[in-house]
Amino acid sequence: MSAFKIKAKDTNCNARTGQLTTAHGVIETPVFMPVGTRGTVKGLLPDTIKETGAQIILANTYHMVIRPGVDVVEKLGGLHKFMAWDRPILTDSGGYQVFSLESINRIGADGVEFASHIDGKRVYLDPKIATEVQNRLGADIIMCFDECTPFPCEPKKLKDAVERTIRWAGICKDSHKRDGQLLFGIVQGGIDLDLRAYCAEKLIEIDFPGYAIGGLSVGEGHENMVKTVSFTAPLLPEDKPRYLMGVGMPEDIIAAVYAGVDMFDCVLPTRNGRNGTAFVESGYLKMRNSSHIDDDSPVDRSCDCYCCRNFTRAAIRHFFNVGEMLGPILLSIHNIRYFQRLTATIRAKITENTFADWAKQMLAQKKQVSE
Amino acid sequence: MSAFKIKAKDTNCNARTGQLTTAHGVIETPVFMPVGTRGTVKGLLPDTIKETGAQIILANTYHMVIRPGVDVVEKLGGLHKFMAWDRPILTDSGGYQVFSLESINRIGADGVEFASHIDGKRVYLDPKIATEVQNRLGADIIMCFDECTPFPCEPKKLKDAVERTIRWAGICKDSHKRDGQLLFGIVQGGIDLDLRAYCAEKLIEIDFPGYAIGGLSVGEGHENMVKTVSFTAPLLPEDKPRYLMGVGMPEDIIAAVYAGVDMFDCVLPTRNGRNGTAFVESGYLKMRNSSHIDDDSPVDRSCDCYCCRNFTRAAIRHFFNVGEMLGPILLSIHNIRYFQRLTATIRAKITENTFADWAKQMLAQKKQVSE
Repeated sequence: MSAFKIKAKDTNCNARTGQLTTAHGVIETPVFMPVGTRGTVKGLLPDTIKETGAQIILANTYHMVIRPGVDVVEKLGGLHKFMAWDRPILTDSGGYQVFSLESINRIGADGVEFASHIDGKRVYLDPKIATEVQNRLGADIIMCFDECTPFPCEPKKLKDAVERTIRWAGICKDSHKRDGQLLFGIVQGGIDLDLRAYCAEKLIEIDFPGYAIGGLSVGEGHENMVKTVSFTAPLLPEDKPRYLMGVGMPEDIIAAVYAGVDMFDCVLPTRNGRNGTAFVESGYLKMRNSSHIDDDSPVDRSCDCYCCRNFTRAAIRHFFNVGEMLGPILLSIHNIRYFQRLTATIRAKITENTFADWAKQMLAQKKQVSE
Repeated sequence: MSAFKIKAKDTNCNARTGQLTTAHGVIETPVFMPVGTRGTVKGLLPDTIKETGAQIILANTYHMVIRPGVDVVEKLGGLHKFMAWDRPILTDSGGYQVFSLESINRIGADGVEFASHIDGKRVYLDPKIATEVQNRLGADIIMCFDECTPFPCEPKKLKDAVERTIRWAGICKDSHKRDGQLLFGIVQGGIDLDLRAYCAEKLIEIDFPGYAIGGLSVGEGHENMVKTVSFTAPLLPEDKPRYLMGVGMPEDIIAAVYAGVDMFDCVLPTRNGRNGTAFVESGYLKMRNSSHIDDDSPVDRSCDCYCCRNFTRAAIRHFFNVGEMLGPILLSIHNIRYFQRLTATIRAKITENTFADWAKQMLAQKKQVSE
């Protein structure tokens, strides 16, 4: 039986709602996954994360391997127990981080050697090891070890990365030994549509229970991203979940759902929250701004999060002004809830078959705001 | 009708349980109050603080006056709304902070001028202003503006401070204009028992609904403190709550309850929590210690806090090791809960009339540990 089931389709675009069944529960899609880089969504207790409506969170294999190490996490009973999170978890493969540390790694045909960003210790990752490590961490969804290219990227390097990603995907599938974990393939190819099509075709031949679109949101811009996603998503099997990695802004998510994408993750809600920026209907609010000094309204009147139900803009501005942790904590809650409300709205619109029109309207508005 | 009602007395010492009725609810005493210096108990959401069992929290008038300012807090509806805390709040008068900034203040007969520790702006506080400010902040319990002396302190200075504290207490009472707030007097006098007796007598003549013992836990040591508290507490009216300010360690609290004290506040649980130190039955645990690296036990097996119910020592050690906020947050929860469990145990022992023996046993144990 397939882990993914489509519930509703919007007849005017490729958007769909679905249910993805994992070992730790069913995920309603489209879904936004908050990021818990080093075993914690920064500043938030698991119960607080749950209260935002988050159905699944992401953890970074690279960071967990560096500290505290996979041995420790495994000995303690796996990532769920370590993080005290009993809902689904997705781990990336470490590929993205490894290839971001470009200056300190050596890419071979079979794997990558890199220096720990903490103590410089040499670490080696290849598709087999990355898969075994993810088997041991024990997330519900795990990812193939891929080569994530920067933007822009010279054609030869892009082509090589795609070939390597395809070859490695086969090794990942063969190395995957743990039941109850869904291993997703990752389509690479930058903004080269031919390469995207080629990569998708080859990965589909290998056959995965889900497919990701990787290598985007690396500087190519909204239009290039939407163009690439709109081309690539429909090439992926309709009955499998599609995951756009590391994305992103509300407008990116809406456009990608329109193209048929089901899953998203991004550090934006927590990173912006820590920096004092709140997502609101009309765009952003910079909460450090002195205009909020005695403002008794909540961050967003239309929001039902713990922060907006309890705190004024003035108090939040004060917490940032004096450097109190509660500022970042409250805005992280608000921003994660913002993305949960966004995806809940998206699911409702698709169910009503009104998503396509709503999406066009929202994207026009967002464009106006950003201009 | 008096705000304070004694419920049970231990017949073998001066310990008692009681109920203190405030505008925001009834407090069971002996009580420990976590400190929310700048409008937040550092790193904790109000719901999380409640979950530790905290009945009342403290906020510092000095810090609220400096930032965001009393005008802002008042405009937003007062401290309860600003902090999103609907249980009782106690504000200190600012005296302790002002007199700690010794090098940058000028003490006159009527008040103190000091420079803001943030921008150097000159600020003036006197008993009338400190009381008016606390009226405007709106806490349930407010404190007289007193002169807190350092330890050691020359006799002349100590005597002058006591005289000033008594004179100011009268002005505070006359200036107090807001119903529903209990104004407590503060007994000063360092470790000079004659001065303590004199100060207590004069304050009782003025008549307050509660009395604090101030100027301790400033370096005089456990024995001097216990001696002073044991002498002073019984001099205070039996039918009024007694509050030992800024105290303290579990052994200090147990000894002070033995002497007849009802209320305590201290930054220790949160400050130690942020530094990676957990209070446990046997003393301390340093959670950064590498001995915890793969320890799957909770911080304290006998503890029922969110941290101990959900996280291993290994995970907490990891969070401190990588600098994640969740480490300080979890240990702050644990440590506050530790003090709430301690005072709950104290109340139960008094109710059973077994407190005196238990206290002696605990103090002997603690002494052994510290030797």
